[in-house]
Amino acid sequence: MTTSRGRRPGAPDTRAEILDAARVLFAERGFSRTTIRAVASDAGVDPSLVHHYFGSKDDLFMAALALPLDPREVLAGVVSAGPDGAGERLVRTLLSVWDDPQVQPALLAVARSVIGDDAGRLVGEGFIPVVIGPVLAALVVDRPEVRIPLVASQLVGLIVTRYVIAVPGMVAMPAEDVAASLGPTIQRYLTGDLG
Amino acid sequence: MTTSRGRRPGAPDTRAEILDAARVLFAERGFSRTTIRAVASDAGVDPSLVHHYFGSKDDLFMAALALPLDPREVLAGVVSAGPDGAGERLVRTLLSVWDDPQVQPALLAVARSVIGDDAGRLVGEGFIPVVIGPVLAALVVDRPEVRIPLVASQLVGLIVTRYVIAVPGMVAMPAEDVAASLGPTIQRYLTGDLG
Repeated sequence: MTTSRGRRPGAPDTRAEILDAARVLFAERGFSRTTIRAVASDAGVDPSLVHHYFGSKDDLFMAALALPLDPREVLAGVVSAGPDGAGERLVRTLLSVWDDPQVQPALLAVARSVIGDDAGRLVGEGFIPVVIGPVLAALVVDRPEVRIPLVASQLVGLIVTRYVIAVPGMVAMPAEDVAASLGPTIQRYLTGDLG
Repeated sequence: MTTSRGRRPGAPDTRAEILDAARVLFAERGFSRTTIRAVASDAGVDPSLVHHYFGSKDDLFMAALALPLDPREVLAGVVSAGPDGAGERLVRTLLSVWDDPQVQPALLAVARSVIGDDAGRLVGEGFIPVVIGPVLAALVVDRPEVRIPLVASQLVGLIVTRYVIAVPGMVAMPAEDVAASLGPTIQRYLTGDLG
């Protein structure tokens, strides 16, 4: 298993080597079948060094995605205020991040690179259920395995239509109107009757 | 403007030449600034030949997208039954097409090629507002410029999460449950109070 390239632990680019190994393994095996041990082995370092640089497997995965911000931190504010009105708060938070001209180009680059090919399945398998899901789980009344994907379907659809493929009517819509229109949808998926 | 390659009108691959020229121009200029005349000129044929092979500019655009079926025909059945229950019918129709193993690979190929890069903007600018919009316009009570993009945001989100990036919870959900959960959302975007 060990494919050490003879680099000593702690060398200046060890962090980058671990990240490269993680990206390859996450893409090849998916999130759940990638272990910290395998990443360490491929990078030729001790597993403790992976933990030292990146923390948990979730954290390593977030680092591999190279997002300009950590969505778990962004979502913390939405979650801490509880389920009431969380639908609209979620939409407002997403818009405030994506409409920020400092952040949008980097997010768009990630979205485009990830949605267009098989790496997208990694987001489907890892990012939404494993990283975003547990945060949103605090907001749902029951059946998180159904409610979280429903929330994701509307939020991903908002991102793709407003930012990635830029449907004119969605681009032109004031954030206030987007929040008023999509908020009740997300709220119903989180806490309402699913029919 | 004329870049005729000396091919005589009606030669065996004229149809393919027109289609190639259309794909290039739609991608470079977008849908609204591409004219039948410019496509004909780039393909080195008379505009009447473009009309002869492809009909209207909408039809030419659909041909350039190379979808395995014409969504306008698929949607005709949803529209003819009127706005009542159209939300759930729309979701059911989308699922019946995308869940069809004969059709799904081709749709997935188009979705992946189009969502990942700038060609996606062509779908945003041309496909949804110009091709799908007029069909759905028969279902909305007012403000089609707001309601159609909202409908698109949820339907595109369903396609991306269930098929393109394959969120496990969304993949596992029975079509019945998807229709019951998303139907009321689409119905509200079409005919309900937008808040």
